[in-house]
Amino acid sequence: MAEQFRAFIDPDFVITDDETLRPYECDGLAMYREMPMLVVLPETVEQVQRVMRICHEHGVPVVARGAGTGLCAGAMPHKEGVVLSLAKFNRILNIDPVGRTARLQPGVRNLAISEEAAQYGLYYGPDPSSQIACTIGGNVAENSGGVHCLKYGLTVHNILSVEMITAEGDRVTVGSDGLDSCGMDLLALLTGSEGLLGVVTEVKVKLLPKPEVAQVIMAGFDSIEKAGDAVGGVISHGIIPGGLEMMDGHAIIAADDFCGAGYPRDAKALLLCEVDGTKEEVHEHIAEAEALFRKLGATSIRTSQSEEERALLWKGRKSAFPAVGRISPDYYCMDGTIPRRHLARVLLEMEKMSEEFGLRVANVFHAGDGNLHPLILFDANQPGELEATEALGGKILELCVEAGGSITGEHGVGREKLNQMCTQFAADEITLFHAVKSAFDERRLLNPGKNIPTLARCAEFGAMHVHHGELPHPELPRF
Amino acid sequence: MAEQFRAFIDPDFVITDDETLRPYECDGLAMYREMPMLVVLPETVEQVQRVMRICHEHGVPVVARGAGTGLCAGAMPHKEGVVLSLAKFNRILNIDPVGRTARLQPGVRNLAISEEAAQYGLYYGPDPSSQIACTIGGNVAENSGGVHCLKYGLTVHNILSVEMITAEGDRVTVGSDGLDSCGMDLLALLTGSEGLLGVVTEVKVKLLPKPEVAQVIMAGFDSIEKAGDAVGGVISHGIIPGGLEMMDGHAIIAADDFCGAGYPRDAKALLLCEVDGTKEEVHEHIAEAEALFRKLGATSIRTSQSEEERALLWKGRKSAFPAVGRISPDYYCMDGTIPRRHLARVLLEMEKMSEEFGLRVANVFHAGDGNLHPLILFDANQPGELEATEALGGKILELCVEAGGSITGEHGVGREKLNQMCTQFAADEITLFHAVKSAFDERRLLNPGKNIPTLARCAEFGAMHVHHGELPHPELPRF
Repeated sequence: MAEQFRAFIDPDFVITDDETLRPYECDGLAMYREMPMLVVLPETVEQVQRVMRICHEHGVPVVARGAGTGLCAGAMPHKEGVVLSLAKFNRILNIDPVGRTARLQPGVRNLAISEEAAQYGLYYGPDPSSQIACTIGGNVAENSGGVHCLKYGLTVHNILSVEMITAEGDRVTVGSDGLDSCGMDLLALLTGSEGLLGVVTEVKVKLLPKPEVAQVIMAGFDSIEKAGDAVGGVISHGIIPGGLEMMDGHAIIAADDFCGAGYPRDAKALLLCEVDGTKEEVHEHIAEAEALFRKLGATSIRTSQSEEERALLWKGRKSAFPAVGRISPDYYCMDGTIPRRHLARVLLEMEKMSEEFGLRVANVFHAGDGNLHPLILFDANQPGELEATEALGGKILELCVEAGGSITGEHGVGREKLNQMCTQFAADEITLFHAVKSAFDERRLLNPGKNIPTLARCAEFGAMHVHHGELPHPELPRF
Repeated sequence: MAEQFRAFIDPDFVITDDETLRPYECDGLAMYREMPMLVVLPETVEQVQRVMRICHEHGVPVVARGAGTGLCAGAMPHKEGVVLSLAKFNRILNIDPVGRTARLQPGVRNLAISEEAAQYGLYYGPDPSSQIACTIGGNVAENSGGVHCLKYGLTVHNILSVEMITAEGDRVTVGSDGLDSCGMDLLALLTGSEGLLGVVTEVKVKLLPKPEVAQVIMAGFDSIEKAGDAVGGVISHGIIPGGLEMMDGHAIIAADDFCGAGYPRDAKALLLCEVDGTKEEVHEHIAEAEALFRKLGATSIRTSQSEEERALLWKGRKSAFPAVGRISPDYYCMDGTIPRRHLARVLLEMEKMSEEFGLRVANVFHAGDGNLHPLILFDANQPGELEATEALGGKILELCVEAGGSITGEHGVGREKLNQMCTQFAADEITLFHAVKSAFDERRLLNPGKNIPTLARCAEFGAMHVHHGELPHPELPRF
């Protein structure tokens, strides 16, 4: 097969030796690893089509890969499969400042879009923490969010169209330049489908005008409950912050130690609430939010008076993950969402679970949209701690589902959360996922073993009701 | 079959006599008519499930129906099928003012949601012109927009989850309370799928806080081109109006005659640009937009100074369709979208076509999001005028596609635009639509003959390239 690829792709970029394959064995979630059969880095859309046709002909699995920064093992290779890296598709094809759009190859880095658009006073909305490295193709695959997605939406809300190559090697464009497009919404279906439906070869995104002004309020609270209620308070008051982030006691100390942001070290919870817009709007909303936080029990309030101060207050939040990394040998970053109104209750419940399991949990997360990122602190060298961590992680996600939320906010399902999908969805829903998957990829060669659990797995996992020893849809694949 | 239904549904609501069936023979696009075999109006979700199971067992087509206000014959009955009316599902189940959501049965009228939410200072965003009558279930089926969708999005951007009954009668919920939800985005896929994938039995929508202030600028221009450029100008300046509507000379006169809105009768084009938000924001943006319109050649400008004046200025726009109805025996309302930057060019092109065909075209439309509503004025009693109108309509839609747009903005495809789907999409894309359809409805009983053209139809219509006399995917259904 490698020889077939080398006939039309520079042989240096058809990789089969172990040493060069090694960096591809996992994505950002390194606990899941697998060596692929080979890695190929095509340069043109036609080459991608030929790769897909050859794999389809031979029945070989294909795992598409962007920058490999994903956090759910979505880009983990298949051991009998090809990793199709889009790394060479890194050109910004066009920026239209009037239409406010950018046409991009899938390997363009998220931050590079905003850097290029800055000359027109524009930027690209979704800003995952990995935005320096992650690529727009990967963002489409995972429907990535970020600090600003509360106000500006997820990837799916910020793209217009996608060109993709199907499992059979056909070139198809979904979506259009208009706000609405006719036919079924395949663009939304494709966004977040984790490489199961096709390989993205071009993306057209919307660009946003840079807000005139932005200010951030830092508010400390003496209980997690009060901070949770303050989040609901500010939103139901009618303010939609550009970002509304929360950190708990563990995270506050760790982040403050790490970068001296001047956080209130005695607070049990901290909110960072950014407002952006016109000068007048920001002025008014900042005053209202300050008053509201005071009323809801804030023990300290500080509002940025300059761009430098705003950057400093955010610095602690943005470095919170590495900061927590310093106070514990290992940590496991969870990702679940809950309806905002249950924030306080879920956080308290999580504190209890943390005590039960004897494992510290630091919370740093997108409070405004109810997207939790509990970090479970553990030491992999202590026997049993990794297992306890995984068990606690599972409990936390079940708690999110029970509160009406979801097992992943922005990190995706990939390989990591296959079992939790059984908690989230009933058999009928998983059957629909399989049917849609088969509609795009009948031979099930695109990123197999990810995103959609088999019904057999769910039955074994114990989360699916099995009637009379029979699975609900025995005709479905069982791999 | 009627007898089977009457066993569990009040017999008065299982309709089989011609006289009572008659009102169901068409939706808002009365040029397409068909009498159904029977109409059934269930009252509970369990009854809907039983209806679906019985139809599935007998292989009988099902057409779901909301208020029947649709404009693409999407709810036109199937002559051998059942019309499943959701009219009795008209309860607002819950409004959560803190979470800002409403849980609704599908037969709740669009405007009734905002009326009920008003007590909390909230409203529901999408506002189709038919909002007094149309229902949320139909809005989901057609992904409805309205004047405000430029700023606040379409139905798909304003709903959280949908409960639906599948072709087999299973009850499934798609979407979740969180901003993001895991698994494939079936909610977006379902929204706008025109009853081809399932029957909606419950909808959870997001509610928005009412803006503090709203003001509207009326700006007249002496050419369509200048008005078109002013639309692009205001948006690329960084203002996102709550509504940005355009009317041409024919529509201005007709609307002003109809309701005395005080429109500039000598203008060739009129823009209505509404800005909403905080007092300061509106004040600032109105001043900027006025200056911009002047710079771009506006011949007259008037800005509402009170709620009464604002209502008056909008009244002309809102009654423009009936107003045009007075100046012509018949009119045919088109619906296409184009990228905003091509507005002026497409409008001029359309003027030329109008002269060629000898038919007047009045334009009243959502300029901000490039959603055109050309009204072709004709007299059905003049031999050949209806045919010429349909031909001109087809040309206009082809022009939209050629400009990078779409054959429908918000009215949908239904039965009406099957042929235009062949212009919009290539065979590979239509094949994907068929495959997704089959994934949900293998026996193809849900609203057959709508939304997705067969490849055979496209080949006959001449818009699809046929290789060597063979259709690209001969295995697909040909009905």
